Amino acid sequence: MKYSNFFISTQKDVSKDVKLISHLFMLKSGMIRQETSGIYSWLPIGFRVLKKVIKIIEEIHDRHNINQILMPTIQSADIWKISNRYESYGKEMLKITDRNEKELLYGPTNEEMITAIGKHYLKSYKDLPLNLYHIQSKFRDEIRPRFGVMRAREFLMKDAYSFDLTEEDCLTTYINYFKMYLFIFKKLGIPIIPVKAPSGEIGGSLSHEFHMIVDSGESEICFSDELLKKNLLDISDSELINIRSYTSDFDKIEVGKDKLIKKKSIELGHIFLFGQKYSKPFDLHVDSKNGKVFPYMGSYGIGVSRIPAAVIEKFHDEKGIVWPKEISPFQIIIINLLTKDKVCCNYTDYLYEHLKNNRLDILLDDRDESAGKKFADADLSGIPLKLIIGKNFLNENLIGVSFRNLNKEELIHKSEIESYLNKFIKNITHDYKI
Amino acid sequence: MKYSNFFISTQKDVSKDVKLISHLFMLKSGMIRQETSGIYSWLPIGFRVLKKVIKIIEEIHDRHNINQILMPTIQSADIWKISNRYESYGKEMLKITDRNEKELLYGPTNEEMITAIGKHYLKSYKDLPLNLYHIQSKFRDEIRPRFGVMRAREFLMKDAYSFDLTEEDCLTTYINYFKMYLFIFKKLGIPIIPVKAPSGEIGGSLSHEFHMIVDSGESEICFSDELLKKNLLDISDSELINIRSYTSDFDKIEVGKDKLIKKKSIELGHIFLFGQKYSKPFDLHVDSKNGKVFPYMGSYGIGVSRIPAAVIEKFHDEKGIVWPKEISPFQIIIINLLTKDKVCCNYTDYLYEHLKNNRLDILLDDRDESAGKKFADADLSGIPLKLIIGKNFLNENLIGVSFRNLNKEELIHKSEIESYLNKFIKNITHDYKI
Repeated sequence: MKYSNFFISTQKDVSKDVKLISHLFMLKSGMIRQETSGIYSWLPIGFRVLKKVIKIIEEIHDRHNINQILMPTIQSADIWKISNRYESYGKEMLKITDRNEKELLYGPTNEEMITAIGKHYLKSYKDLPLNLYHIQSKFRDEIRPRFGVMRAREFLMKDAYSFDLTEEDCLTTYINYFKMYLFIFKKLGIPIIPVKAPSGEIGGSLSHEFHMIVDSGESEICFSDELLKKNLLDISDSELINIRSYTSDFDKIEVGKDKLIKKKSIELGHIFLFGQKYSKPFDLHVDSKNGKVFPYMGSYGIGVSRIPAAVIEKFHDEKGIVWPKEISPFQIIIINLLTKDKVCCNYTDYLYEHLKNNRLDILLDDRDESAGKKFADADLSGIPLKLIIGKNFLNENLIGVSFRNLNKEELIHKSEIESYLNKFIKNITHDYKI
Repeated sequence: MKYSNFFISTQKDVSKDVKLISHLFMLKSGMIRQETSGIYSWLPIGFRVLKKVIKIIEEIHDRHNINQILMPTIQSADIWKISNRYESYGKEMLKITDRNEKELLYGPTNEEMITAIGKHYLKSYKDLPLNLYHIQSKFRDEIRPRFGVMRAREFLMKDAYSFDLTEEDCLTTYINYFKMYLFIFKKLGIPIIPVKAPSGEIGGSLSHEFHMIVDSGESEICFSDELLKKNLLDISDSELINIRSYTSDFDKIEVGKDKLIKKKSIELGHIFLFGQKYSKPFDLHVDSKNGKVFPYMGSYGIGVSRIPAAVIEKFHDEKGIVWPKEISPFQIIIINLLTKDKVCCNYTDYLYEHLKNNRLDILLDDRDESAGKKFADADLSGIPLKLIIGKNFLNENLIGVSFRNLNKEELIHKSEIESYLNKFIKNITHDYKI
């Protein structure tokens, strides 16, 4: 993408009420705009990040044969009356009345609807197991929306749902999602601590949340420091679901006595095993060799639109965002410092087209702006690698190469730039410890 | 995808109220499920089609440097009061009150919000032109939702918006979208008639709709039969916006006198040139060499979730859907008729993995079902090409090859199947006249 064709409007002035660093940088770099309290638009550079997060989550779900669907945002109150959550959910549910006075609501989650879908299609034990997910807007009418997309009212959630024939199968499924979540967060470049959690509104017997430790976090978790030394992807299933880590509102923990550390954190995922809690009231049953069975279910959420903010909380410096390559809006920015010079323009155009044809995400800064403004904008928006074309290029065919996460600039001859970039693409994973 | 890992629940019985053929086949093939009046879930096989439609639309917009964003579904009533549409829009607008008694609404379209975004970021004539689009759920509280996703209340729309400095530039932009729309529908395999339309609620000076002629259509268009003979992508700009075709509610036409044909049709796209209608009341202006200018705007919609239904209306037979390859949920289905035979299972597994690695979308029917059921399901869901592995394979290494749109089966030796499929991939575009 050429800057001249791309809408990025970096902002100098941001309201003084903005406290969270991710919120600040997302506004300043033109990623998001608040439309009204707790409701945001994702602008082009922000939406590119969101789309990459979505793509990683989709690919991993697809690989696990979890089928993607799209349930609507608006639900009938009827199904929430079956589960008795229409009243109990509280004021966070956005209730709506249509032109025919029918009670609707904007879905805060989809356990009821997925159970209704299961009831429609699942007839025999042969139809199980079934795993479905969707990525869809949710609405929770927070009393104090704040921190930008971190605690928005309208937000994007990935929610998966599982149906199994037996309690044992359901537990196996739950553990598989648990491991998949560890893998997804690793891929996204987010260090994660899974913790035991109360099941809350959704209900059920087993629940874990996935937290990122960060001082600005609104949540609090307690965990044994041994957990930090372990590679959780390597431990056994039973060890995994019995890890010594908890949300701070978990019932039975005593931090001092249990030798646990307490840390501020951000919740990014939440999984629930709730068995027959919904299948029974919906009378969702399948025929099996042992007669009628109510399937055992679980649900598995990731706060998709919260992830870019969480990553920024973790990866930034005083100049702005420091994106991991995997979800950066662009992988490389070419900065042309001499936009009035034909040689520089021709070469940057060539380099841009060439790299683009190699399926790299390139931003070419072809604006008629000062070098200072160009560097500041590139640093603010966090693109991992800058290629700088200016006087050194004109005099000696040298290209400035500068990594966003390192504080130095190297000069590379144009004849070597291609092999240099090939290495960058292969190795950047290590640079960001993903 | 293997059938054993995929959730497709074809349905025998569908409500007798279902009149439209696309609605019937979408329900029967398990593409969609009605959740409540005019509100649908897209199930796995349906969502695959929807995603392919979205991808084609995105790629073409991206190629035109129209930047993708994501505006929220919920909007503040405030901005609709500025344009005076909060009251005038009528009962189709789903109005909502939040827990703080603030007036919100579920966006039926986004002219107001995009103008507010423009006002925030556009300061100078140098910031123009600007083109943005998003693909987002909309809600219109139809009094009579019907025909499945064809006239749903919650639906997916692609809406693009343009900002230009002059009226002339805006007209050029409008014509570019016009041509891009003709190209998009061609890519989607949909024969389209563009017609002049009244501007209606959105307002403005120029408007065209894009219709597909089909007897089951709810709309009606009038056009000169010369239009059918022309390749609209080849004609001049002025000829294009002055074509002799109209929606039937267009003011100044007289079918008989003007020698026009009248046909039933489905509206799939709508573009508007509305100039300063929104920029003025929002006081969205930019500085230019000639002082303050209110940008000239247009909006450009495609009914994304209506497209799969429209394609089915056009491409089906008595057995079910006949998908064009471009948007078929799968390009090829491998039907294993002898799922208890090791030789057949091994070969279908090999063929499945091999074709999948070549980036083809393959469905492997590995179910323990009768041949009749397998063929019926494959025909119903409209997959362009069947590869049939059964007795002929066991005896003579012959694979049955059958195109959904032709009424015959060929036998191909397994040594020739690869080169045969390569040809299929290259030529299928012609088979469907896209």
